[in-house]
Amino acid sequence: EFQSSQPSPMAAKSEPNRNPKYDPKKPHITDQPITRSNWYKHVNWLNVFLIVGIPIMGLVKAIWTPLMWQTAVWAVVYYFATGLGITAGYHRLWAHTSYKATTPLKISLAAVGGGAVEGSIRWWARDHRAHHRYTDTNQDPYSVRKGLLYSHFGWMIMKQNPKRIGRTDISDLNDDAVVRFQHKHYLSVVFVMGLVFPTLVAGIGWGDWMGGYIYAGILRIFFVQQATFCVNSLAHWLGDQPFDDRNSPRDHIITAIVTLGEGYHNFHHEFPSDYRNAIEWHQYDPTKWSIWTWKKLGLAYDLKQFRANEIEKGRLQQQQKKLDIQRSKLDWGVPLEQLPVMEWDDYIDQCKNGRGLVAVAGVVHDVSNFISEHPGGRAMINLGIGKDATAMFNGGVYNHSNAAHNLLSTMRVGVIRGGMEVEIWKRAQRENKDVQFVKD
Amino acid sequence: EFQSSQPSPMAAKSEPNRNPKYDPKKPHITDQPITRSNWYKHVNWLNVFLIVGIPIMGLVKAIWTPLMWQTAVWAVVYYFATGLGITAGYHRLWAHTSYKATTPLKISLAAVGGGAVEGSIRWWARDHRAHHRYTDTNQDPYSVRKGLLYSHFGWMIMKQNPKRIGRTDISDLNDDAVVRFQHKHYLSVVFVMGLVFPTLVAGIGWGDWMGGYIYAGILRIFFVQQATFCVNSLAHWLGDQPFDDRNSPRDHIITAIVTLGEGYHNFHHEFPSDYRNAIEWHQYDPTKWSIWTWKKLGLAYDLKQFRANEIEKGRLQQQQKKLDIQRSKLDWGVPLEQLPVMEWDDYIDQCKNGRGLVAVAGVVHDVSNFISEHPGGRAMINLGIGKDATAMFNGGVYNHSNAAHNLLSTMRVGVIRGGMEVEIWKRAQRENKDVQFVKD
Ligand code: HEM
Ligand code: HEM
Ligand SMILES: [Fe+2]
Ligand SMILES: [Fe+2]
Ligand SMILES: [Fe+2]
Ligand SMILES: [Fe+2]
Repeated sequence: EFQSSQPSPMAAKSEPNRNPKYDPKKPHITDQPITRSNWYKHVNWLNVFLIVGIPIMGLVKAIWTPLMWQTAVWAVVYYFATGLGITAGYHRLWAHTSYKATTPLKISLAAVGGGAVEGSIRWWARDHRAHHRYTDTNQDPYSVRKGLLYSHFGWMIMKQNPKRIGRTDISDLNDDAVVRFQHKHYLSVVFVMGLVFPTLVAGIGWGDWMGGYIYAGILRIFFVQQATFCVNSLAHWLGDQPFDDRNSPRDHIITAIVTLGEGYHNFHHEFPSDYRNAIEWHQYDPTKWSIWTWKKLGLAYDLKQFRANEIEKGRLQQQQKKLDIQRSKLDWGVPLEQLPVMEWDDYIDQCKNGRGLVAVAGVVHDVSNFISEHPGGRAMINLGIGKDATAMFNGGVYNHSNAAHNLLSTMRVGVIRGGMEVEIWKRAQRENKDVQFVKD
Repeated sequence: EFQSSQPSPMAAKSEPNRNPKYDPKKPHITDQPITRSNWYKHVNWLNVFLIVGIPIMGLVKAIWTPLMWQTAVWAVVYYFATGLGITAGYHRLWAHTSYKATTPLKISLAAVGGGAVEGSIRWWARDHRAHHRYTDTNQDPYSVRKGLLYSHFGWMIMKQNPKRIGRTDISDLNDDAVVRFQHKHYLSVVFVMGLVFPTLVAGIGWGDWMGGYIYAGILRIFFVQQATFCVNSLAHWLGDQPFDDRNSPRDHIITAIVTLGEGYHNFHHEFPSDYRNAIEWHQYDPTKWSIWTWKKLGLAYDLKQFRANEIEKGRLQQQQKKLDIQRSKLDWGVPLEQLPVMEWDDYIDQCKNGRGLVAVAGVVHDVSNFISEHPGGRAMINLGIGKDATAMFNGGVYNHSNAAHNLLSTMRVGVIRGGMEVEIWKRAQRENKDVQFVKD
């Protein structure tokens, strides 16, 4: 079993962090703080060259390379193909095993995925599993908590201590012959699928060797890389959290457009084994559409979906959570159990002394400041003062709206013992009989 | 005090239902069902002529009347002015007293409102108060429960029994000199403001007397009428109910556009004393914008707003209600109190007999059908079978997501007596001591 933190005999030199020369006993550069004199040792110069250097050279060369329309179309087509290699292949097939693929489809995905130049499947999926398992922690290889740029490509441009990244099980990937082959011959795959193949198509197809090399090769690589890096940065930074807000993943249509549908990332982190990222038909998830089409063509099978019941539950729980937060910010009136208890006679006395109190459903409300504002007029609300206005308020005179009930609850000042005027007590008192009053 | 159901000495003949000739003792035509021989008696022919007949004549005449661009602009401007007379004047000022207006503003609103030809303020506001107080009941003059077309103009085209319409207090309107004057001289107001004035402007302004009469007069009246009728039909039929769903009023941007902002009708019925219908800045409510501008100009004052706290409470309660409905449709697992109680040893025995049971937090779950699907692999979930897996499940081995907890709850099959394996009982049994087991 291979773990993220172990050097692998199969690791190619081009893979940062897992180079066979790495000795876990030697102190790692990341153990030292970055200073003026050692900063360049912290930089992964190979990756700077691959991710930033080459594209700049490509851009400069592009100035002298006219862009033929066929090459432009081809670059866009190949951009989508290699992007799908990452999203449908590296990500949903290998990292998450959210569906199964026949060998021809596997080989194609491993090939075009390699053409996106983002490391081997094995390396990529291992880190990605750690990203899901340890999201937002220090063991997350591209934690957005370390900054948006860090999660975008900082984690590749700066050297990383391999011991830091969380352990994950990739035994299934080590059993996969396609993964093993692609990993072993990774540099050749990159060279052939990233540069040779797009150049050949444009060269043999319409004679544009240089354009194929620059536009469908180098610059296309740059755009695919930047687009898919957005899953680690933008998708953890921009948008809503309809399923869970304890971690950073977010849903946003912009991220989805940039990343071939990987932008419904809050859903994805909550239901990573689902082959879909977007669950609504109207959301943009071309990766899902492709997998679904491959299934129809017999190339993919066992497409996994999380139970709709569980997905809906997650959504409702999150809505409830948001609602509870909003609810706690509002004034719902003094809770009944915190109100002072009042005798019915006290209530009457206070009203006689001019206080504007109205008893509704056993609760006393101070409406003094509201009388002149009452939409039903002064006369109406005055009718209720010093009485049990429960019936009047609830339809006897006027069936008040929900809004009126809400307003009423903010005016609470007391509860009446026994809940209302108890006629029998009053009669007993009048008739001066020997009745025991239980007063608490 | 004037009530809807009483004939008024001030009622003009053009007002249906409240004609002085009406005798409450004589049986009313609406007491008889509509038949083949009496249907024409049920029709209010005067209103048919006013609402349908005149516009058709106008349309026919328009064929021979060229439309000058100045007249077109003027018709649209006057459409908005007379529309505002209804929405800002008749409706929000007089029917709901949601703000106060200076006399010049009152006179202007009474004038342009009359130009919309929808009855006098007094008649309109009386019915409208009944509509609010008795919404959707038989006492509602234009209840949408009787059909969309009925609420749109059926209630005017068919004769109505005035006894049917709910009683409302309009003493404040009877105290208002502008309202009294407009009511008394209603037909003259209609004639002058509906036809003469728009014709004069176009005639004196750019010599288009006939165009002014047809387009800014007759056809403009038709459009204003149909637009404002939509408040009674469309606004009770199309859209969302963010504040209350017990009655028919609804919010919709289309209704808002048609009705100068009266389309946030669910809000309006819940908070009718608020001078706004739209509370968000980005919603379309030109009537609100106008009232606000008049306030800045010193023409309007005392603009009433319901407390934001109460508005938010209404919205949250409605959201909660919707959430509860959705929640009740999902499978949340068997409630704990309905689960059979199981001894710890039973649990162990059943697992030994090959049942895939996992105890988490005192609850036994049957995971048999899930083992092969477990995203963490068969080995992991098998670790929990026949054990107290509480700690494993909650971080000891893997800190499962909320989705995993939800899924788990659907697999409940029993609760363990005492909640977990009670070590002391087992030790006592082993040591064969005289311990009493209290078993229920
Ligand atoms: C005790 C506190 C009261 C509060 C907070 C209150 C609140 C309100 C509110 C907010 C309205 C506007 C319509 C609505 O939202 O339902 C209203 C209308 C009304 N209230 Fe009250 N009310 C109170 C007491 C009373 C009492 C005691 C009476 C009668 C005895 C009364 C009679 C009316 C009537 C008749 C209307 C209808 C106004 C109309 O539609 O023109 N109210 N009240
Ligand atoms: C008892 C019922 C169980 C259910 C319903 C369940 C469900 C799940 C689910 C849905 C996941 C996907 C990730 C997530 O949503 O959190 C998961 C992952 C996992 N589960 Fe379980 N699990 C159960 C038991 C266990 C037990 C007993 C263990 C360990 C002893 C375990 C170990 C794991 C591990 C390690 C993962 C991570 C997989 C990865 O990230 O690669 N599970 N489980
Ligand atoms: Fe992520
Ligand atoms: Fe993922
Ligand atoms: Fe309405
Ligand atoms: Fe209204």
